[in-house]
Amino acid sequence: VTAQPTAEVIAVGDELLRGDTVDTNGAWIGRTLAGIGIEVRQRTVVGDQVDQIRDAMRAAVPRVGLLVVCGGLGPTADDLTRDALADLLGEPLLLDEALLQRLAEYFADRQRSMPAGAVVQAMRPSSAWPIHNQVGTAPGLRATCDGCTVLLLPGPPRELQPMLTGLLPQLPSAAPSSARRLTVALLPESLVAELVEPLLGEATAAYYATPGRVVIRLTGATEAVAAATARAAAVLGDVLLDRADAAESVLAAAERRGWSVAVAESLTGGLVTASLTAVAGASAVVRGGIVSYATEVKDSLLDVPAELLDARGPVDPEVALAMARGARRALDADVAVATTGVAGPDPVGPHPPGLAFVAVSSPEDERVVRVDARGDRELVRTLTVAHALDLLRRSLNRLPDYSATAEPG
Amino acid sequence: VTAQPTAEVIAVGDELLRGDTVDTNGAWIGRTLAGIGIEVRQRTVVGDQVDQIRDAMRAAVPRVGLLVVCGGLGPTADDLTRDALADLLGEPLLLDEALLQRLAEYFADRQRSMPAGAVVQAMRPSSAWPIHNQVGTAPGLRATCDGCTVLLLPGPPRELQPMLTGLLPQLPSAAPSSARRLTVALLPESLVAELVEPLLGEATAAYYATPGRVVIRLTGATEAVAAATARAAAVLGDVLLDRADAAESVLAAAERRGWSVAVAESLTGGLVTASLTAVAGASAVVRGGIVSYATEVKDSLLDVPAELLDARGPVDPEVALAMARGARRALDADVAVATTGVAGPDPVGPHPPGLAFVAVSSPEDERVVRVDARGDRELVRTLTVAHALDLLRRSLNRLPDYSATAEPG
Repeated sequence: VTAQPTAEVIAVGDELLRGDTVDTNGAWIGRTLAGIGIEVRQRTVVGDQVDQIRDAMRAAVPRVGLLVVCGGLGPTADDLTRDALADLLGEPLLLDEALLQRLAEYFADRQRSMPAGAVVQAMRPSSAWPIHNQVGTAPGLRATCDGCTVLLLPGPPRELQPMLTGLLPQLPSAAPSSARRLTVALLPESLVAELVEPLLGEATAAYYATPGRVVIRLTGATEAVAAATARAAAVLGDVLLDRADAAESVLAAAERRGWSVAVAESLTGGLVTASLTAVAGASAVVRGGIVSYATEVKDSLLDVPAELLDARGPVDPEVALAMARGARRALDADVAVATTGVAGPDPVGPHPPGLAFVAVSSPEDERVVRVDARGDRELVRTLTVAHALDLLRRSLNRLPDYSATAEPG
Repeated sequence: VTAQPTAEVIAVGDELLRGDTVDTNGAWIGRTLAGIGIEVRQRTVVGDQVDQIRDAMRAAVPRVGLLVVCGGLGPTADDLTRDALADLLGEPLLLDEALLQRLAEYFADRQRSMPAGAVVQAMRPSSAWPIHNQVGTAPGLRATCDGCTVLLLPGPPRELQPMLTGLLPQLPSAAPSSARRLTVALLPESLVAELVEPLLGEATAAYYATPGRVVIRLTGATEAVAAATARAAAVLGDVLLDRADAAESVLAAAERRGWSVAVAESLTGGLVTASLTAVAGASAVVRGGIVSYATEVKDSLLDVPAELLDARGPVDPEVALAMARGARRALDADVAVATTGVAGPDPVGPHPPGLAFVAVSSPEDERVVRVDARGDRELVRTLTVAHALDLLRRSLNRLPDYSATAEPG
């Protein structure tokens, strides 16, 4: 058994530390290297200072077999990664005539004169090799330091990504260990972990929770992951989605049944419809949605009886059901889901923020569930969307309603 | 003159290294600390391993006065930041009875039994103080190590942000400089910077761009910031919003005019209505929205003439305008905005992904603009939402259409 190859990533840029820019390269590099079995052990973000960059490189080199440094290769005075590499290697920066030639052609092609500052992009430490940039002016650099492969890549994702992708076949990759992702709807993260942990065997699990959803990532040897996946699926039962997210599961289920889908929304204000239509190909299934934000619109467009609205107010299980029925009719769909409730921060009549009802109406099924969400306006809306998509998925798949208190399995 | 206080940030989570999650906390913390004059010198991302977390903390402590560690405080076996702090301090983890009590109340409030694993969230090293979590179950922790203030915060942004914001007054900040945020709609970041940089005087600007929006953050002495703000406002003119975001500007403008608002959406699938209703108090202005995802729904609910749809197809400026008119009528609103276009990844008839039309209809105004967005499905939808909100804002405020080529000012 050979050890899994490891890497570190250093991202360079004051703008990353100050938070003017979110570092998306780190995540992309992590995914890309994981794809060929290289594990990123640490990522470091440093500012535009030669000594900071060099010290971070020097600390990383003995720890890993591959070091990817991104950013700081441009033509301006704060682009200092090249200098830091020269410092690390103890070599001066030389002018590479072939690189200079290529730079000159780049500007000539674009009918622009080459700015004087651009020349620095043709400099490299003597033992470093240039990596061609298909998109921009700054070449990458590849060097070896104490047995560690060091790659310097430009910061802009559209320059960095093709460059690293092109280098992948030359990197020290491992037999990829197997990884499997399971998405669980509505169940709290602590409960998911409690259920899954005893089933892992030789596999390892990590959990990632967003409101209304937990993603379990199982890794390990291929058979260990397959066995753990089977055991987890058996215990989790119907809280486990058959797709990576709830909207995709709904669309897949609707497609299997040959049913079209409609939505009626009040407190979620369009988010349920937006979640469904975020999936490419949604138009095969989704007819559309009606956001009946004003109470009168629930009557005028969704035919919710005015007497019901007068008697109960808009936040009511019967109103939710009437909205779902109205959306099926108005949008000529087979099945519809509806939401009504209090997003907050203020209560609506006697109802506190976070109280909502979601309903489904289909040719074979009518259901309403009550949601008690705690949190701010955004969280209440997000959790209500999660409940609406889950109720719809359960109706389409003829599953019982979700219950947080019932033990799955 | 005292030196500027410095900080480091450590983000904990295998999912960050593997790239399953993009680290947005780092940027937010950088901006927030910069706002009170604390400079973040380095950010490190480490995996879910006690020794990795502890070593990163141990390396950072002697370098800075403040260390913020985020993530790894949850209830599952891979949440190990608490243990790493205990290790760093050389103290055992103790059960804090008051924290346990609070956890028990959290679950009791929600009528859920407390999972056994949750108890670990009531543990702390003896010299560390808990920081109350207003939103979730995991408290933060605050400790001092060799003169460095160490804050442990939960990873989810909605838990982390209020916690750190609440702590700001207690942090070792620099002479409080003044800060001002300006939000610009649609103008590209490079152009915003080109316009604003010459106007800064003694103030400093940082730029933060998201699709369709640039936030300029001006910092410096109070008078310098006020002067730079006035100059920037004069040059930016009508691309500068009078609120922090486009939806708030639209709602404020509609309220000033006493007009109600409706939405008709195709490719944006509910996101325009969702953006407007994300603002607390939206119900005073927003009547609702119709997501006419299927072409027939544009006819049946929005009265877009079937002949027009047959002749032109759904992606057409006249169709966008007819949708806006239809939404005004169907939802009984004063003004309506509509979107139609191609979200992608596939073209619609002759139209490429990214082509969209947005239209507004009001008692005094009808407008249509063409949007050419480049990017994936999510980006196309997000940019179309930005254009729709901007057109609506401009119509409500009697401003000319946005033009990327016209020099503002």
